[in-house]
Amino acid sequence: MSKKAVIILSPGYEELEAVAVVDILRRAGIDIRIAAVENGPVASARGIKIVPDVSLDEIKDDKFDLIVLPGGLDSTETLSGDGRVIGMLRNQIDEGRMVGAICAAPTVLDRHGLAEGHEITCHPVCREAVRHSRISDKRVVTDGLLVTSQAPGTALEFALRLVELLEGTEKMKEVNKGVIARL
Amino acid sequence: MSKKAVIILSPGYEELEAVAVVDILRRAGIDIRIAAVENGPVASARGIKIVPDVSLDEIKDDKFDLIVLPGGLDSTETLSGDGRVIGMLRNQIDEGRMVGAICAAPTVLDRHGLAEGHEITCHPVCREAVRHSRISDKRVVTDGLLVTSQAPGTALEFALRLVELLEGTEKMKEVNKGVIARL
Repeated sequence: MSKKAVIILSPGYEELEAVAVVDILRRAGIDIRIAAVENGPVASARGIKIVPDVSLDEIKDDKFDLIVLPGGLDSTETLSGDGRVIGMLRNQIDEGRMVGAICAAPTVLDRHGLAEGHEITCHPVCREAVRHSRISDKRVVTDGLLVTSQAPGTALEFALRLVELLEGTEKMKEVNKGVIARL
Repeated sequence: MSKKAVIILSPGYEELEAVAVVDILRRAGIDIRIAAVENGPVASARGIKIVPDVSLDEIKDDKFDLIVLPGGLDSTETLSGDGRVIGMLRNQIDEGRMVGAICAAPTVLDRHGLAEGHEITCHPVCREAVRHSRISDKRVVTDGLLVTSQAPGTALEFALRLVELLEGTEKMKEVNKGVIARL
C-alpha cells in the first residue's frame, strides 16, 4: 500500500514549494493529494492557477502519513486562521504522524503551539515571528514529527527529505537519479 | 518596460521545471505568460493541472524576449510536432532573441536544426537522441541565443541564469536573496 499525503493550498501559496513536493512525492510512488481551502483553481503568490484534486472539506477527517503546508505569506495567514487546518495538524501530531512546513508555513506550527520546544527552520524574513520553537540555520530540519525548511531554493531538498523519511534513503536516491538535485 | 517571455505548456510537461521558471522570472519583474497548445487546464507529467494564461494561438505571432520550453517526454514530442511552436522558435532565433529549453526539451531544438553546431545540455536519458549539437555535462549551458539545462534539480539554476541574461547579475542575486537557491 502506498503512503498517503496531502498538501494544503490556500490563495498566495508559494508555487515552486508546492509543486516540488507534489512532483517528488509522486515520483516516489507516494499518493499525495492537492487539497484547497476553497473550490476551483487556486492562484499562487505569483499568479499560477492550479486546479486542486480535492477540497479540504472532503478530506479533513481522513488519515494521512504526512500533511504538508507550502509557504507564501498570504497563504500562511489563511492556513493559520482556518480551524479545519489547525484541527488536522493537531490530530496529526497527537496521533504520531508527520507534518512538513516550508518558508513562512512553519510559523503556523509555532503560533499554535505545535512546535513547542522543537527545533524548526523557516524563511529568514519570518524568524522574528517565531516564539515557542528553536530556530535552526539548516536548510531542512527534522525534529520529531516535524520537517521544516526555508524557501523555494530549499524545496527540492525538503521534498527529498520527506521521501527519505517515508520511503527510505534508497528510494530517495533512486528518485534523485532522474531529478539531479544537489543534496 | 518589462521584458516579455512565454513558456509553452503541452500535456505531460515537467511541472517543477515550468513553475520554477515562471516563479523566478515573475520575481524578477519579467512579464512571463503561460501559454498552452490546447485550451483549459493542462495536466503535467505527474497530474498537476495548471490553468494557462493564454492559448498558443493567441500569442504565436507576438514577439518575446525569451521563449521557454519545459521538459517532460510526452510534452517534448508534442512540442516538436507542433508547427506553431517550431515556427515561433525559428523566428525567435532568426531575429536574434533568446530560447530556453530544459530536460527533454533541448532535443526539440536539436531535431529541427535550431542548435546546429552549438553546445547544449539535456537530461542524461535524452543524450543519445541528440544528433546535431555538442552535449555538455554542465547543469546549465549558455551558447549564443540558447540556454539549456538538465532536469528538475537544475531548474532553479536555469531560471536564475535566464534572469541574469535578461536583467543582469545584480537582479539575479537580488531575486535569489529571497529564494535561497545554491548557485
